[in-house]
Amino acid sequence: MARIVMKFGGTSVADLDRIRNVAARVKREVEAGNEVAVVVSAMSGVTNQLVKYCQDLSPLHDAREYDAVVATGEQVTSGLTAIALQEIGVEARSWQGWQIPLRTDGAHGKARIDGIEGAELIRRMRAGQVPVVAGFQGIGPDNRVTTLGRGGSDTSAVALAAALKADRCDIYTDVDGVYTTDPRIVPRARKLAKIAYEEMLELASVGAKVLQTRSVELAMKERVRVQVLSSFEEHTGGNLPGTLVVDEDEIVEKEMVSGIAYSRDEAKVTVRHVPDRPGIAAAIFGPLSAANVNVDMIVQNVSADSMTDMTFTIGRSDLARAQAILAAHQAEIGYAEMLTDPDVAKISVVGVGMRSHAGVANTMFAALASKGINIQVISTSEIKVSVLIGVEYTELAVRALHTAYGLDA
Amino acid sequence: MARIVMKFGGTSVADLDRIRNVAARVKREVEAGNEVAVVVSAMSGVTNQLVKYCQDLSPLHDAREYDAVVATGEQVTSGLTAIALQEIGVEARSWQGWQIPLRTDGAHGKARIDGIEGAELIRRMRAGQVPVVAGFQGIGPDNRVTTLGRGGSDTSAVALAAALKADRCDIYTDVDGVYTTDPRIVPRARKLAKIAYEEMLELASVGAKVLQTRSVELAMKERVRVQVLSSFEEHTGGNLPGTLVVDEDEIVEKEMVSGIAYSRDEAKVTVRHVPDRPGIAAAIFGPLSAANVNVDMIVQNVSADSMTDMTFTIGRSDLARAQAILAAHQAEIGYAEMLTDPDVAKISVVGVGMRSHAGVANTMFAALASKGINIQVISTSEIKVSVLIGVEYTELAVRALHTAYGLDA
Repeated sequence: MARIVMKFGGTSVADLDRIRNVAARVKREVEAGNEVAVVVSAMSGVTNQLVKYCQDLSPLHDAREYDAVVATGEQVTSGLTAIALQEIGVEARSWQGWQIPLRTDGAHGKARIDGIEGAELIRRMRAGQVPVVAGFQGIGPDNRVTTLGRGGSDTSAVALAAALKADRCDIYTDVDGVYTTDPRIVPRARKLAKIAYEEMLELASVGAKVLQTRSVELAMKERVRVQVLSSFEEHTGGNLPGTLVVDEDEIVEKEMVSGIAYSRDEAKVTVRHVPDRPGIAAAIFGPLSAANVNVDMIVQNVSADSMTDMTFTIGRSDLARAQAILAAHQAEIGYAEMLTDPDVAKISVVGVGMRSHAGVANTMFAALASKGINIQVISTSEIKVSVLIGVEYTELAVRALHTAYGLDA
Repeated sequence: MARIVMKFGGTSVADLDRIRNVAARVKREVEAGNEVAVVVSAMSGVTNQLVKYCQDLSPLHDAREYDAVVATGEQVTSGLTAIALQEIGVEARSWQGWQIPLRTDGAHGKARIDGIEGAELIRRMRAGQVPVVAGFQGIGPDNRVTTLGRGGSDTSAVALAAALKADRCDIYTDVDGVYTTDPRIVPRARKLAKIAYEEMLELASVGAKVLQTRSVELAMKERVRVQVLSSFEEHTGGNLPGTLVVDEDEIVEKEMVSGIAYSRDEAKVTVRHVPDRPGIAAAIFGPLSAANVNVDMIVQNVSADSMTDMTFTIGRSDLARAQAILAAHQAEIGYAEMLTDPDVAKISVVGVGMRSHAGVANTMFAALASKGINIQVISTSEIKVSVLIGVEYTELAVRALHTAYGLDA
């Protein structure tokens, strides 16, 4: 017997047939002797419609009213899922954030969870009732509904799993797990049985969007074991069918590299011939930060005759804004020239095994060189090596690295 | 300066343009120096969709889950209306039933209001904020969302007006007031400036469905002055544009008859040759009542040789069920024959003035006789005379009576 939180995303509850399918899955877990709590998103499309209503009425709408409106999508599916469960003989009831209560801070539209009262839910689960919790929402200090930001239902589920001391949090989605890389690029990509929290965070932040980043951070902090699995495939007993996101220590045989991620949403900016003096980095990045332009990789070349070049990457959608900001601050920064390139991609190799393996970066550079791919920028962290290359080489690079690190199935 | 509750039905908030129109109306009342609270229904069609979801998943769904699902429609419009008000510079915030709180009993799906905490709303109205309350719902003793039954937003509005000690409750709808009869049948029907609660109740219960019956009962009990008016017409200052539903004492010049109502949804049942003994009425109507068949008019003929005939009317949709029930109880009741007629209509003349005028019923009988219309059943109350006639005479009878009581414009 285990205690499990099962979370279903918008495509998994998109219509009544899929809600019935969700109920059948929950019933199987209950009949296997488990205590189950369910977290649901809104039917796919509903949240977008509600957001659009708010934006059409007022581009700068009150975030508290936005929350009151947008949170209703999950309230509908939690009630419908409870009805579907009751219909097949599973005792169930819906819970809205304010009823649990699931308390958040007052940052409407992007609230953070402060705490969840789990005692009553645990009592009911022990008595055989399945709580069906409306995801994505809670109640703020002002006694008003708050939402956790887009994709927040993943975070609801992980937080609930922590509060209920669940053995596992199963996130049902439209993919069947986490892969060594994008199977659309590398058909021989393998599904990972386990992946460490840190690896999942690095993979998510470079574009392998299976779980909301905040939910992984929370799972890591609270040590919640998360399984990513498909709500559209039949799973038959035995091993866990999806990918388990767990603490590094649970992964006995650590591969040097667990996965290859890529992002094509990058742009490169080079500010040439800037005075090499203390405070120059702050002069460049301060105005960008103030305008909420997120800077990722940064490289500063070795100084020559007291002048230097600064290269960095930003999201491509921020490029026009960043150019305008830097142009406005040219005198202050004192650069001679600004160069930009929107046609770049970031390729990353990720693995907690890097900590105990040498030569990971070198394998990468050699593999790319053998394909004639030029590396424009390099950045490394404890469990990741990223490079910036021309966007047209993306697929070639990902395939070469997948083979070079022995990840092919 | 007055304190006004403004209630807008589903067609008045059917899309964003209409919500903007609602906001503009509210703004005009605020700018006229009034303290305003708003009650909104769900966008038209939304509640039906949500009800259908519940029914499709389970015909015998849990009413508590039904309430959680169906109440979201009004939550959406309350948030959107608050945003629309803020957008045109009117301070506003949405309120859900549990936030006020608006407390109800635990009869999910058809809850009755127990009480409303009005103090905080009054404080905010005095400070210039417009509360926008989600109609149709409250919170039950189980801390779960309850709904008040279809059309319940009228009742929410009247109850709120009572709790806020409002001077008036304006119900915006798709008609511009209460008429002396249905203008589709009598083009010369007149809009009434005022009508008494009791008259409104009698007119509503016989098919002039402008306000939910419960809301009128509540208004009468709490002495809330209710105005029915159109949300699609422009009203320009001066007199109240709609029909005011008020205490009888407020109506100085009482007409003998205020209106003519009709209902075509009737069926007539005659049980012939039943033993004329004590308890026979209970033997007939007990089983019908137990099966929730509502009996309206009842006539018992004078007894001959210890036998009698019993005639009564029921809703036409209940006819098949009533026939089956009576057939099953034939031995017990001891009747010889059952006759039914689904082709009947009930015509009623209503007016508090009847209390002080003689000859009201006779005028009715004479007018119908002059058109050759046969009266099948007669029933009278203090402020109403109803007759049952062949359904094909409905329009002819309504027109004749409208003229006979001097109601033509």
